[in-house]
Amino acid sequence: MNYYVGIDLGGTNIKGMIMNDQFQTVISRSSHTPYKQPPATTFSVIIDLIESMVISSTLNLLDVVGIGIGIPGLIDCRRNFVFNAANLGWIDVDAGSVIQEYFKKSVYTENDGNINVLGEMHFGAGIGAKNIILLTIGTGLGSGFILDGKLLHGASHVAAEAGHMVIESDGTQCSCGKFGCFESCCSGTALKRYARNFALENPGTLLLQYAGGDPKSITGEIIDKAFDAGDYAARQVIDVFTNKLSIGIVNLINLFNPEMIIISGGVSKSGDRILDPTRRLVESSLMHPIQHCNIVSGVLGTNAGVMGACMLVSENEQLVK
Amino acid sequence: MNYYVGIDLGGTNIKGMIMNDQFQTVISRSSHTPYKQPPATTFSVIIDLIESMVISSTLNLLDVVGIGIGIPGLIDCRRNFVFNAANLGWIDVDAGSVIQEYFKKSVYTENDGNINVLGEMHFGAGIGAKNIILLTIGTGLGSGFILDGKLLHGASHVAAEAGHMVIESDGTQCSCGKFGCFESCCSGTALKRYARNFALENPGTLLLQYAGGDPKSITGEIIDKAFDAGDYAARQVIDVFTNKLSIGIVNLINLFNPEMIIISGGVSKSGDRILDPTRRLVESSLMHPIQHCNIVSGVLGTNAGVMGACMLVSENEQLVK
Repeated sequence: MNYYVGIDLGGTNIKGMIMNDQFQTVISRSSHTPYKQPPATTFSVIIDLIESMVISSTLNLLDVVGIGIGIPGLIDCRRNFVFNAANLGWIDVDAGSVIQEYFKKSVYTENDGNINVLGEMHFGAGIGAKNIILLTIGTGLGSGFILDGKLLHGASHVAAEAGHMVIESDGTQCSCGKFGCFESCCSGTALKRYARNFALENPGTLLLQYAGGDPKSITGEIIDKAFDAGDYAARQVIDVFTNKLSIGIVNLINLFNPEMIIISGGVSKSGDRILDPTRRLVESSLMHPIQHCNIVSGVLGTNAGVMGACMLVSENEQLVK
Repeated sequence: MNYYVGIDLGGTNIKGMIMNDQFQTVISRSSHTPYKQPPATTFSVIIDLIESMVISSTLNLLDVVGIGIGIPGLIDCRRNFVFNAANLGWIDVDAGSVIQEYFKKSVYTENDGNINVLGEMHFGAGIGAKNIILLTIGTGLGSGFILDGKLLHGASHVAAEAGHMVIESDGTQCSCGKFGCFESCCSGTALKRYARNFALENPGTLLLQYAGGDPKSITGEIIDKAFDAGDYAARQVIDVFTNKLSIGIVNLINLFNPEMIIISGGVSKSGDRILDPTRRLVESSLMHPIQHCNIVSGVLGTNAGVMGACMLVSENEQLVK
């Protein structure tokens, strides 16, 4: 039996998984991402993680056909080259050679949004769909696009940066330098910013009460709890957030006409509190009902990335054969 | 020899062309689009236009292999069905059957942005490129997308509506009902609106002088002439316009990573007055030089659409064979 190794390299954690060629999970494990270290340190952690998974599952390394790695940033997957991965502090890094030479296995890299959408398409919310956009809304806003069953890559393989689509040109400045990007309006970070601001304007809000009086301690869970209790400020937070989210989503529908938009990442834990108003706002902004698009939560949670990274190996190995 | 008929149905004019299978133009001709008439009247005009071209060029109708028609609106090209074509006043119109039955020829429809980008890709500015976005900036802002050499259609074939991508959510209201769409910020209509506003703020401007004192008479040509004479208000007009244009273009680059963006339509006549500042603004907003994209003018002018419509017939007939 053949085995696929999937790695999801995040700014905080590195997740790993091994799947067999029937796409059953053999083992999954994770490590902390080295903080402010050179790329070589991160490669060592990835190598250790893979070795520990192979040993613990008593696999023969000979049966591993390849290693798929998702990386948050601008990547040319054809040569495993990372142009820019802000959360890792990487600029112009060869992300394939070290691991490839160590294991003598093919290494396939992709943007993290791409492995997440591959995972949800093959194993999760997107099964059966061929035109899917995935938005991972956490600290930032990542994305992956499947058009006619295939990943969108673009001319130099750095497409699918929906987080840096400007939706309000006089909005809050984004980490990329521009103003009013989808990410700076609709990330988990933005959600907490709205909560802090509305809390300061509404001193009696449950948002503050649940956060021990400190606006900076307001979390996604606190916003959800206050919202469920009918708190006015919490409802305003969700209103503002879903308004902006729906603008970005309608943009993507007008451009790509997907059949499904999958929302994953930390913010998706709020579920229908965010999805229901977003669906209503989106439907009311379409030009024609033919543009209808299902807006759903991801179902694989944080496993979507590693599962997609395993699928990446499978797809590439089939191309090679 | 086989022949292709191409029709570009616009809000004002209907253009027609016949090409042979070596893609040489045999004849081209145009008619006025019937104003506020039912679709059947427009079909009659199209039929007359095609017949007059066939007769004038002494072709045998038997040698015509099919008819391609570009239509400005949301279209499902698989069944020649127009959901919505605002400039024609069409809602839910079968745009194929009447013409197909009259000539007993296959009819292929596409959104007008799509036939324009097909034309420029095969015969114009986009020769050799495989990832191209075309923006037709005239009364409105239309678009067509070529990804990996193929038209982007989406799940229900109504993708590529870049004109309705919101870039400033508190901006001017668009004909679609939303606020701050790319079209409402960056069409020829918007350009003239900026000119009127700056003219009212700057009574001594050449914009007004050239327009005989009437802000409503300011045209694109007047803006260009005043700009070339160094007029302050005209420069402000171009500044505002190119700023917004670059925001929309950077969005498209972040999403699609095209190698080329072709600007066509009336506004493209302003040439480098608009393209040069736009290129500078776009380059300075990219996240990495790998995203570089050539921004060029279309070279086929108003022929891009009919030429693309002929190519549409050729491509579809090859698929059938």
